[in-house]
Amino acid sequence: MASLAKFPNYTNQTLDSRRISHLHSRTKAFHGQISFRNSNLSFNLSSNLNSKRSSRGMRMVVSASLIEPDGGKLVDLVVPVGPTRELKRRQAERLPRVELERIDVEWVHVLSEGWASPLRGFMREAEFLQTLHFNSLRLDDGSVVNMSVPIVLAIDDATKQSIGDSTKVALVDRRTNKIVAILSDIEIYKHNKEERIARTWGTTAPGLPYVEEAIKSSGNWLIGGDLEVIEPIKYNDGLDNYRLSPAQLREEFEKRGADAVFAFQLRNPVHNGHALLMTDTRRRLLEKGYKNPILLLHPLGGFTKADDVPLSWRMKQHQKVLEDGVLNPDSTVVSIFPSPMHYAGPTEVQWHAKARINAGANFYIVGRDPAGMSHPIEKRDLYDADHGKKVLSMAPGLEKLNILPFRVAAYDTKKKKMDFFDPSRKDDFLFISGTKMRTLAKNRESPPDGFMCPGGWKVLVDYYDSLTPPETNPKFREAVPA
Amino acid sequence: MASLAKFPNYTNQTLDSRRISHLHSRTKAFHGQISFRNSNLSFNLSSNLNSKRSSRGMRMVVSASLIEPDGGKLVDLVVPVGPTRELKRRQAERLPRVELERIDVEWVHVLSEGWASPLRGFMREAEFLQTLHFNSLRLDDGSVVNMSVPIVLAIDDATKQSIGDSTKVALVDRRTNKIVAILSDIEIYKHNKEERIARTWGTTAPGLPYVEEAIKSSGNWLIGGDLEVIEPIKYNDGLDNYRLSPAQLREEFEKRGADAVFAFQLRNPVHNGHALLMTDTRRRLLEKGYKNPILLLHPLGGFTKADDVPLSWRMKQHQKVLEDGVLNPDSTVVSIFPSPMHYAGPTEVQWHAKARINAGANFYIVGRDPAGMSHPIEKRDLYDADHGKKVLSMAPGLEKLNILPFRVAAYDTKKKKMDFFDPSRKDDFLFISGTKMRTLAKNRESPPDGFMCPGGWKVLVDYYDSLTPPETNPKFREAVPA
Repeated sequence: MASLAKFPNYTNQTLDSRRISHLHSRTKAFHGQISFRNSNLSFNLSSNLNSKRSSRGMRMVVSASLIEPDGGKLVDLVVPVGPTRELKRRQAERLPRVELERIDVEWVHVLSEGWASPLRGFMREAEFLQTLHFNSLRLDDGSVVNMSVPIVLAIDDATKQSIGDSTKVALVDRRTNKIVAILSDIEIYKHNKEERIARTWGTTAPGLPYVEEAIKSSGNWLIGGDLEVIEPIKYNDGLDNYRLSPAQLREEFEKRGADAVFAFQLRNPVHNGHALLMTDTRRRLLEKGYKNPILLLHPLGGFTKADDVPLSWRMKQHQKVLEDGVLNPDSTVVSIFPSPMHYAGPTEVQWHAKARINAGANFYIVGRDPAGMSHPIEKRDLYDADHGKKVLSMAPGLEKLNILPFRVAAYDTKKKKMDFFDPSRKDDFLFISGTKMRTLAKNRESPPDGFMCPGGWKVLVDYYDSLTPPETNPKFREAVPA
Repeated sequence: MASLAKFPNYTNQTLDSRRISHLHSRTKAFHGQISFRNSNLSFNLSSNLNSKRSSRGMRMVVSASLIEPDGGKLVDLVVPVGPTRELKRRQAERLPRVELERIDVEWVHVLSEGWASPLRGFMREAEFLQTLHFNSLRLDDGSVVNMSVPIVLAIDDATKQSIGDSTKVALVDRRTNKIVAILSDIEIYKHNKEERIARTWGTTAPGLPYVEEAIKSSGNWLIGGDLEVIEPIKYNDGLDNYRLSPAQLREEFEKRGADAVFAFQLRNPVHNGHALLMTDTRRRLLEKGYKNPILLLHPLGGFTKADDVPLSWRMKQHQKVLEDGVLNPDSTVVSIFPSPMHYAGPTEVQWHAKARINAGANFYIVGRDPAGMSHPIEKRDLYDADHGKKVLSMAPGLEKLNILPFRVAAYDTKKKKMDFFDPSRKDDFLFISGTKMRTLAKNRESPPDGFMCPGGWKVLVDYYDSLTPPETNPKFREAVPA
């Protein structure tokens, strides 16, 4: 008789670096070290079914190629340059129009480049229901890919009526009035907001940032279909060069001869604890026999909540971290992940991981309480801090990804630097949360030496200065840490 | 490239009898008839992986044996009769005690007989999280079984404290103070009620019957572990003989030489529309070449909401329906499904279907809005009426079950009997909802001739009479329909 799969039990343990189960692996605690069951880079198998079989002990083909995208082939929904593009644009002009808000355009971007492969457009009801209930989609060949957040487009009653019997619509950016894409073979179905919110966030409490921004006042219908994007989505904010598509990232990794790609998702400034973790991960991958592990430092570039540091400032900060030599530019690719942020904890972390598979990453670093936040109306975290990595280790469709739980780093007051937390001398360590870090920068106070490289810290202070109304902006500022 | 699986699209269609996709089957509308892709009774395959492979077109082994239970073997958690039982009881007396409410005992019953196979006890956190996020559990061999509702046991702070470091507890029925079971290798974890409710029901609105009864005032911890039930759960209500375990049902089906078992879940009185549907399903199964399809008429016996007809009255009514010859006793097994009712719509219908696989059913009839109810605080149904069957057709772990959507039956005023709704002469049909039926019986009004067999109707009227306070009970009653 088949027994229930055992997953790592974190209940009574301190956080440490460990390999969360590859498919069906038994709980093993590797204190202080990462253990990889499969030391080859990618399985290079043609389907998920095969990769399941492989993880059951069959010998795997070691290959220099990158991990396979979900569904076998990276989706690309941008109409090719040339006459077709103009033809599509003219065709679109005659179609009923659906207006896109900022976040909708971000999703068009995400879909167009195949981050959500094999999804080829906004979800129809069959995909939406599978996402809500199973966090995954079943493909025609019986394999399963992960898909945990609904990628849907809401329309109101008037728009639905204006579409009438048309099978296609033009998607128009409301801010510029420019046609962005065509949605074909459309399906319009009910948008039960309450159910969508409850099943995605595990709460319906008011104040969830994405809900307030994108769902609350959205229409009562969802429109799904196949997307053709007229031209690549650009933001003209000076950062478009950092917005590498999954295909471009894969090209970059291959150009650099990567034999392992480890992704680090972030939406906060990088401090030396993060840097330590990334450097340490690379060291361990080298120890395991990889010759050239490449870090994908992958800040999220879409919608974030008001009190997060904006993308442009974060990018400046990340750039400083590389300039200051905290991370090695030769083994690091900094790029922007165009997805909006849900702040949906264990549900969203699956999306963050899945999208990186499509970009070629076969290792994924997961932190404490990933994509989490405070409960909007209760005095507690919205999610259990450990659920993110637990759910990630169990998620259907992510079996081929190597999950690397975060080791907790803290400021070692004895060594005067960020180091992995050592419970045997816990009083020597100082924990500086993201909130604490932001408060320090906001008040122009200095963090302890060695918390963050000085150049990076200066960017943060400059950001908060830029927010201060001129009349209250003091002339004398504290020096940034040396 | 693998493409997304297409599921039946019900958007613009009237309900009719059709075969919802077996795994990966394309949408095909078989108006007015059921079509079975696989005409063998069961696949008799050892794993889900294999059954997936089979559905991809490989030739299947036709077998006279019943469908395989989830996980390959039916779980039986009742301690064998004899000295072991006494030993266990004495052992239990020395353990920390956890008190069970009525619904907890019902779940012990469910678990003990293997309805939730391969689950061997109340869920630990790994199972709980998989249920909430994926409605399914991954087994050690990589196969997946469906598991959509959390089967968990809540304890309060004081009980948690009293358990201390013990690895085992005794489960005690609070109403009788009798030891019911031992839970071993226990794991205690946080009971985030809000998240549990939101992810199970898709709403957190107050007034959900199961939530009010079993969750709202339950403890802040969940305790999982392996269950050993001291002796079979009995209710001593005169109906225990109807409470056949999955093993006993399988025995009965084999004794009768069933080559197909079709299950009908219900928690309402049976009217002639139901009967027509069941009779018609059998006829079609015979047409398809089955020699002896057996109906499992399977009323739910656990917790139901206050305005549902109580089990004892429903059982009397079902008995009458068989006595009156509306259903053929030779091809019908009436038995009680011991599960409590969640009223969780698309989430719960999966549980209802999955449990019947374990009882040997390979065909499952699914109605409109299964396990649905009115939204507790808004003027609408809680779930989209079509989502139940859609989600069922997509649910991981249910690929081996043949889903038979309900054909809508209504009262044909011309033929003066219940018949399948014919949209071409829709004005001839009268729809009598469950609420309408209950209201009629409550007011001692007669339904139209042919709506329900007279004996069955009388049971309903008697039930509502039994509720009427004596002083308002009128002496003259309307005659029951002839």
